Amino acid sequence: MRISVFRRAHFNAAHRIYNPKWSDEENRRVFGPCAHTNFHGHNYELVVKITGEVNPDTGYVMDINKLKQIIKTEIEDRFDHKNLNLDVPEMQGLIPTAEHICFTIWKILRAHIDEKLDLSVRLYETPRNFVEYPA
Amino acid sequence: MRISVFRRAHFNAAHRIYNPKWSDEENRRVFGPCAHTNFHGHNYELVVKITGEVNPDTGYVMDINKLKQIIKTEIEDRFDHKNLNLDVPEMQGLIPTAEHICFTIWKILRAHIDEKLDLSVRLYETPRNFVEYPA
Amino acid sequence: MRISVFRRAHFNAAHRIYNPKWSDEENRRVFGPCAHTNFHGHNYELVVKITGEVNPDTGYVMDINKLKQIIKTEIEDRFDHKNLNLDVPEMQGLIPTAEHICFTIWKILRAHIDEKLDLSVRLYETPRNFVEYPA
Amino acid sequence: MRISVFRRAHFNAAHRIYNPKWSDEENRRVFGPCAHTNFHGHNYELVVKITGEVNPDTGYVMDINKLKQIIKTEIEDRFDHKNLNLDVPEMQGLIPTAEHICFTIWKILRAHIDEKLDLSVRLYETPRNFVEYPA
Amino acid sequence: MRISVFRRAHFNAAHRIYNPKWSDEENRRVFGPCAHTNFHGHNYELVVKITGEVNPDTGYVMDINKLKQIIKTEIEDRFDHKNLNLDVPEMQGLIPTAEHICFTIWKILRAHIDEKLDLSVRLYETPRNFVEYPA
Amino acid sequence: MRISVFRRAHFNAAHRIYNPKWSDEENRRVFGPCAHTNFHGHNYELVVKITGEVNPDTGYVMDINKLKQIIKTEIEDRFDHKNLNLDVPEMQGLIPTAEHICFTIWKILRAHIDEKLDLSVRLYETPRNFVEYPA
Repeated sequence: MRISVFRRAHFNAAHRIYNPKWSDEENRRVFGPCAHTNFHGHNYELVVKITGEVNPDTGYVMDINKLKQIIKTEIEDRFDHKNLNLDVPEMQGLIPTAEHICFTIWKILRAHIDEKLDLSVRLYETPRNFVEYPA
Repeated sequence: MRISVFRRAHFNAAHRIYNPKWSDEENRRVFGPCAHTNFHGHNYELVVKITGEVNPDTGYVMDINKLKQIIKTEIEDRFDHKNLNLDVPEMQGLIPTAEHICFTIWKILRAHIDEKLDLSVRLYETPRNFVEYPA
Repeated sequence: MRISVFRRAHFNAAHRIYNPKWSDEENRRVFGPCAHTNFHGHNYELVVKITGEVNPDTGYVMDINKLKQIIKTEIEDRFDHKNLNLDVPEMQGLIPTAEHICFTIWKILRAHIDEKLDLSVRLYETPRNFVEYPA
Repeated sequence: MRISVFRRAHFNAAHRIYNPKWSDEENRRVFGPCAHTNFHGHNYELVVKITGEVNPDTGYVMDINKLKQIIKTEIEDRFDHKNLNLDVPEMQGLIPTAEHICFTIWKILRAHIDEKLDLSVRLYETPRNFVEYPA
Repeated sequence: MRISVFRRAHFNAAHRIYNPKWSDEENRRVFGPCAHTNFHGHNYELVVKITGEVNPDTGYVMDINKLKQIIKTEIEDRFDHKNLNLDVPEMQGLIPTAEHICFTIWKILRAHIDEKLDLSVRLYETPRNFVEYPA
Repeated sequence: MRISVFRRAHFNAAHRIYNPKWSDEENRRVFGPCAHTNFHGHNYELVVKITGEVNPDTGYVMDINKLKQIIKTEIEDRFDHKNLNLDVPEMQGLIPTAEHICFTIWKILRAHIDEKLDLSVRLYETPRNFVEYPA
């Protein structure tokens, strides 16, 4: 019996969308107010999806409290109340769009989840804008 | 890096579910109060999903502001504050069920989205009833 | 021990905002797309608030199932899948703005709620626009 | 035209997570407060997804009111205001985790849905914890 | 500058609505399925409102993290993953309706909040049923 | 007929909670991670409440589209995609807590709303933390 389990979490962070290879003018033209120098921010909502076989002894695909703890230690402690352009080593060299943040979260979590389990990550930047990796 | 981006939008419209090939009695029998002659209406919520490769220069699959603008021009301006039985040429000949509205929105948007990108549309008629195309 | 209890309900209806004393042009100027001739519609969300003393034998201010039944019979059966300009006798002579719909619902419910209990009604026309009576 | 339709429903139930083959101590170690002897409970939210071809005469994949009625009779009447460890024959022998409840709901519904239609079930135990079957 | 600050929290609990002075039959007649012997349960959502003057040195009415900690220690630790009929000493002798739970929470919190600050509590039993004390 | 109308809006901004009269150490002690030097951010949700008499010619307390426009021009254009410590002249000298942001929004809006109408503002910093002025 293969089933998916989901855990929702959240963190609050600042960022700006800015390509350092471009002039300020070019950044403003492409990214508009998202390129604003002094940063803006979001309440990011995260949904982590784990897929695998149910363990008949526990009735769990994975102990959701262990998943919650991994998300706390590996994601919230790294991203919450931080600046995504300046404070997160794993984001260095990446423009902190929702796409790149989502992929980075997936890569960090992938190393901490049993490889028999599939992993996917959905990230809400606002209630109206969100992304999912893998597609 | 293939990823999905989502944009949520909304419009308010009137409709009735009615098959003109049938008698009023048959329509009432099959569609119940949804067939009511004087129309009723909904706050439709729309979620548009675009899947493709991330552009390394922008960190975007697609500029979400361009997607927002396409949804505004092609969908909201056509459907918002309208009657889906009477006012939308693209819906003519189709009973305006959530299924048909969703498919029509997909068809309209498909013509405006880069063909390298995949497209899917979810439409909420109420928070409890919704549809998605393609399945 | 005075306490308030709330019950949320919903109905789907069509309407247009139109003052019959004015020309079509004046209606369009004042009400914009809300005046559209062929109607549009909403998923109305209703929150009914009842305030009074808790009955020590039941622990209830009022049996919420009786309140639910009154809302069903008096409001949902009158307003759901209806046209608020054409189908609701209690709305005749009133422009069906959220303000007038909310007040009409309050007046209908007031006659069915024990007069020792206070009553107020909040009506959501969309998640972003709502009204409350009494203020 | 293959499309998916979704219907959301809910029920309130008590449960505890407990493996009768294990000691109380082992249950507490593995399941923590979820193993609490006197039960706890949840507002379960259920999303049923049906996928198939649209019937051109109705514009429906399936009459959502028939689906709503099946969910009412087969799921809500069995699970609502019940204890999932003690009251639901279909759950006997299964630890009532979200995974097992979701799978049981899927199995019950599968027998009542036209076999030309695909079925999947998502179950929210809380807004932050949910599961989906099939994966 | 008098202002209100709100903090939302949640707990999951089992209960049944049952008046021990009445027969089982009378309980079933008055309380319906809520009287079910084996209990049922809810995801309770709690909104605590604190009103007072803003401290000019901190810009806070009250440090929301201290409020969060008080709610954790005094309410969540007492009510979460518990049976409201059997496990909470402060509820003994009270039928655990939303009204009585809300009042009990208010009474517990009142003792831990600075008396210069006003306190009110809203408790959601489901998204559609909720109560507030004081009224 | 006195009634209240509400309009919800939103903006995304960066901030840090920091009292310039204190040492960095004292700021960290009092404000914790909210004092983080490189800023963090939020999706702020705003609910503006206007109370007054219904105009019998329009059925409106106030044209909600005019209110929406005032919120756009006076609040969103000032606060959206901005840094609340650095970019908003009206916030200078105020620690940008939810309390102070809410009060500042109220003061700005008050100057643009007919003085016969009452005004109150609720500001959500996260779905779990929010404030309201006046209390």
